[in-house]
Amino acid sequence: MPPFTFTIDAECPATRARAGTIQTPHGTIQTPIFMPVGTQATVKSVSPEELHVAGVQIILGNTYHLMLRPGSELIASFGGLHNFMHWDGPILTDSGGFQVWSLGHLREVNEEGVTFKSHLDGSVHVLTPERVMQIEAELGADIILPLDICSPYPCSPLDAQKAMESTHRWEERALLAKEHYNPEQTLFGIVQGAFEPELRQQSARIIGNMPFPGLSIGGLSVGEPKAEMWRILRYVTPELPREKPRHLLGVGSPEDLVVSVGLGMDMFDCVLPTRVARHGGLFTRNGRVNIKSACFRATHGLIEEGCDCYTCQNYSAAYVHHLARTEEQLYYRLGSIHNIRFMLRLANQLRAAILAGTYPEFRDEFLAHYIPASEQIREEQREKWKAARQGQAVASTDEIELLDG
Amino acid sequence: MPPFTFTIDAECPATRARAGTIQTPHGTIQTPIFMPVGTQATVKSVSPEELHVAGVQIILGNTYHLMLRPGSELIASFGGLHNFMHWDGPILTDSGGFQVWSLGHLREVNEEGVTFKSHLDGSVHVLTPERVMQIEAELGADIILPLDICSPYPCSPLDAQKAMESTHRWEERALLAKEHYNPEQTLFGIVQGAFEPELRQQSARIIGNMPFPGLSIGGLSVGEPKAEMWRILRYVTPELPREKPRHLLGVGSPEDLVVSVGLGMDMFDCVLPTRVARHGGLFTRNGRVNIKSACFRATHGLIEEGCDCYTCQNYSAAYVHHLARTEEQLYYRLGSIHNIRFMLRLANQLRAAILAGTYPEFRDEFLAHYIPASEQIREEQREKWKAARQGQAVASTDEIELLDG
Repeated sequence: MPPFTFTIDAECPATRARAGTIQTPHGTIQTPIFMPVGTQATVKSVSPEELHVAGVQIILGNTYHLMLRPGSELIASFGGLHNFMHWDGPILTDSGGFQVWSLGHLREVNEEGVTFKSHLDGSVHVLTPERVMQIEAELGADIILPLDICSPYPCSPLDAQKAMESTHRWEERALLAKEHYNPEQTLFGIVQGAFEPELRQQSARIIGNMPFPGLSIGGLSVGEPKAEMWRILRYVTPELPREKPRHLLGVGSPEDLVVSVGLGMDMFDCVLPTRVARHGGLFTRNGRVNIKSACFRATHGLIEEGCDCYTCQNYSAAYVHHLARTEEQLYYRLGSIHNIRFMLRLANQLRAAILAGTYPEFRDEFLAHYIPASEQIREEQREKWKAARQGQAVASTDEIELLDG
Repeated sequence: MPPFTFTIDAECPATRARAGTIQTPHGTIQTPIFMPVGTQATVKSVSPEELHVAGVQIILGNTYHLMLRPGSELIASFGGLHNFMHWDGPILTDSGGFQVWSLGHLREVNEEGVTFKSHLDGSVHVLTPERVMQIEAELGADIILPLDICSPYPCSPLDAQKAMESTHRWEERALLAKEHYNPEQTLFGIVQGAFEPELRQQSARIIGNMPFPGLSIGGLSVGEPKAEMWRILRYVTPELPREKPRHLLGVGSPEDLVVSVGLGMDMFDCVLPTRVARHGGLFTRNGRVNIKSACFRATHGLIEEGCDCYTCQNYSAAYVHHLARTEEQLYYRLGSIHNIRFMLRLANQLRAAILAGTYPEFRDEFLAHYIPASEQIREEQREKWKAARQGQAVASTDEIELLDG
């Protein structure tokens, strides 16, 4: 039996949504799926057992962070990331490309690869497509990604094309290099092309036809308006082979999940649910609430009535508010668990709707009630996080997460 | 059946150690027992379920902190602290006296009670013996303490006597006031007298003869050398009635537990195990190790071989080291759980030794292997925590804990 299979369980007749099943060496994943991010070999504040209870089926690890601390050789000496961090389900590791791109002036790209300075201690490191395959083999995730170049937003068409073409060459090199390592690992391809429809279509066709069992869409959710991301996805999906799962890298929010599923995406990862939770933002079917708000001070009810997460099953909104206001560490856990469970429940609901043939109705109903954080609030948050990052030499939790995308 | 009973299961023939059983409305406690501190309605980083798994039988809540945030009336509206924080086992609340004493220039004592300014916002509050009974009734703990005056170390004999005599008068008022509130709650008396043997003996006789079902020894572990604390305990215990449980307030470390049990103490509470864990200090049978030390970077083994805590059952020392070094929130949880389990296991072992008639051997064996943090290191840590406290207006985790003692 091959280490990786993807079968389509149902397709929406009216949209591009589909429900599928992925088999990996560490278990089955039912799509659409949201993958919480475990940047430094831990999903911040949450234990592996709690992830399982929240319905998590696969998590994402960050190659960039893990190669710097504690180092991929050390993790390999433990038999890989699964054993090291005590998570027995599937793992996907990214390539580090996005984080290196985020380092800005600390990195330099040439045809061979990328040279960068660590955000931790300024030490110099070189990543090439081949070296990334070696590191990801040491980490031992079920699904791995090749080194790519993530263009900024905005970006000139010529720069976008050059970055895309380099990425394509790097992906060919990654495919060749991967043959030296563990055949139990599955290498996805990455589609780039910035915000140029023709480049995106070209990248989707080229990478879609290469022998990658799955495809990640990179270079989106990098600061553009949401409408722009959705516009690009409408060009990409029709060019992708139907039989390969599609991972939308670094996305996203609840509304992103609901909309992007209809545009043909199967897998999602993002730090947003856990990051906004740490800042007090908790998801409900009507949108994000700020649990630190005085309105929750005496609320005997739950963060969201009917929620089946550990937090809502055991604690009042007033207690969660109290922990958040007093900055108690238990708050970060309870808030993160609530938002992770919200995302996984939403993915389950999307799957059920697709299987029942009612995805469009589910999407419209969800979007009619869910008030997303406005673009302006999102932009302000991003600026605040960036400022926090520039203001200190040592990496803070949010700086580290900025690098996750 | 009375809400509170204490029965002695065994007494050591060679020392003053005893093993007992306490019944409370929320369950049974087997002594000797260590009580983790839940300052702000949460034992920092650890969930109620994890406390149960670690063998915790009773926790301590801080009246001072809870009256300020979220307020005792709010907690009362939830049916008390048990419901509010989702802990169904026994709880002991202190009186706030120790914290108010710690506020230094922010408080003023007279015969009526104590006036103080909140460390959070400078707001003025008055605590009297009667008001404390009302607040503790609202919090609803199983065991409650009366307002007392904790003398500093060192302290003149005259000041020590005046503080003790005021405390005695306040305790009489507390007993009277308590009659207006929930008879399911049990009020312990507090023995004071600073470091004057005669005052301590006098206080033990007076408070021991008042109708308190249990007794707390206050005013120790306030900066004096350990030998001084033990010297005082040797005067106190013989004066205490045998049939009442004895709680040594704000103590302590593993070695404190082992020694103090032999001096006749039954119950202990302290933030030390969770606080030192957060700073990297983890307990082993050979003493405290610093998990951040580079020597653990590649340790495939456990923090302590044979340890039955959740952390050691599931994670290598290298992984815990990695989380501590990267300041991941999961570290604070895993470290705290390890130290809490260490303290509860130690209490179990002490009990088993007393029941088996082998307490002196157990004590000597333990102390022969366990290397305690030196007085000098302890003093430096205290100074660091104090400096951290003075350096900032807003309460940090450690400042809040300083106020816990």
